[in-house]
Amino acid sequence: MMQRYFIREEDWQGDKVRVTGDDVHHITRVMRMKEGNEIICNHPSGKAASCVIESISPDVVQCEVSEWLEGNSELPVEVSIVQALGKGDKLETVVQKGTEMGAAYFYPYQADRSVVKWDMKKSSKKVERLRKIAKEASEQSHRNVIPGISDVQSMEQILEHSSDYDLKIFAYEDEARTEQFHSLSDAIASLDSGQRMIVFIGPEGGFSDNEVQKLNDSGFISVRLGPRILRMETAPLYLLACVSYQFEEMR
Amino acid sequence: MMQRYFIREEDWQGDKVRVTGDDVHHITRVMRMKEGNEIICNHPSGKAASCVIESISPDVVQCEVSEWLEGNSELPVEVSIVQALGKGDKLETVVQKGTEMGAAYFYPYQADRSVVKWDMKKSSKKVERLRKIAKEASEQSHRNVIPGISDVQSMEQILEHSSDYDLKIFAYEDEARTEQFHSLSDAIASLDSGQRMIVFIGPEGGFSDNEVQKLNDSGFISVRLGPRILRMETAPLYLLACVSYQFEEMR
Repeated sequence: MMQRYFIREEDWQGDKVRVTGDDVHHITRVMRMKEGNEIICNHPSGKAASCVIESISPDVVQCEVSEWLEGNSELPVEVSIVQALGKGDKLETVVQKGTEMGAAYFYPYQADRSVVKWDMKKSSKKVERLRKIAKEASEQSHRNVIPGISDVQSMEQILEHSSDYDLKIFAYEDEARTEQFHSLSDAIASLDSGQRMIVFIGPEGGFSDNEVQKLNDSGFISVRLGPRILRMETAPLYLLACVSYQFEEMR
Repeated sequence: MMQRYFIREEDWQGDKVRVTGDDVHHITRVMRMKEGNEIICNHPSGKAASCVIESISPDVVQCEVSEWLEGNSELPVEVSIVQALGKGDKLETVVQKGTEMGAAYFYPYQADRSVVKWDMKKSSKKVERLRKIAKEASEQSHRNVIPGISDVQSMEQILEHSSDYDLKIFAYEDEARTEQFHSLSDAIASLDSGQRMIVFIGPEGGFSDNEVQKLNDSGFISVRLGPRILRMETAPLYLLACVSYQFEEMR
């Protein structure tokens, strides 16, 4: 299977593509490719092309498009994951595997019960690292576009734009434990291709009562993600797989 | 939410339950519980009870059943995950999150292209660690039973018992890239409650031609797990979420 790289808009000139930065190292050292070998280059628009390597210098791999590719592996509905800050490398796990599973955007947010805090300096380093992980996971999983990752925000900041979405849900632990739960499949199946959904995932300690109130006030509905209690980093993966199953695998 | 512990059969005596081993440390040091506090104790049969702590000594927490609980959070179909050995802590990720998502059994196997090998000594330590992870994840996610984890086996050893299953599939990377793929939902939806399925997940480098041949000869069908290429540790989580969605969330 051909290796895939996401190339910035300014590095496309007609049928010529300039590959720079870390990708040069990957192509020449990790993949050990030579002139005449082929790679797939993705344009930020979502289009992708088979490209032949024309020349290799220490800083630039110069390629030419040999064939534009048809396939599209993007989820038919756009899923935004709003993920509470959590301990350790949980956000990295969510971004890596959530990208493989087709998420469109990740919004890290500082929840009332988040046990870690990101200050401005830490935040920009963390987000930079998450963007790198998203790019690599997009290449590995053959996505057409790289998911966006926002700077860390408060719940209020995110709720301000929540009217843009066709479906607004949050994963509420207590919902897994009641008989009269909101059906995830009713919620997901109500969407049409091209529509947008947003989901809030709480931290290890769950949402605060105050947060649940704000979510309810903004028109979010609580759903259960199966009857078992999922960790905060497992919940978005469960959700994304269900969206994929509903829109890409059921027929 | 009450903390849950899985207690060995021999530690139940009528309504009396003895908690021993690491769980004592967890109850007294991590949760800082006292006499009179309540925990949930799971019997290996799958039954669970609310229990009151009667006495605490350094090695034993003695409890009494106050109420047998009704709920069952087990997947209605039994899913066995046969997972190729992979680099780093991938198997631990699969067991932890696969347990949360409801898997019944994990079978680690030495694939042709597995880049790591487990010798006898390494294998028993690794499996012991995986069993500990499965127990902890079962407690955290409120499972009724702990998934079983076998010693590492060869593909042939596992195929010998594959006639026990109602559905036999393998996740084949090439299947994600064809238009005429086998539908995962057709496969899953063919099962009834109480039936058993088994899925082979290949290593980083995929199945060898020889392995694909053996799987086909044993009646396994290849399915795609969505149109994107999933890492070896993401694939079983995608599958388990889809099984949960089909049997627990759709209605």
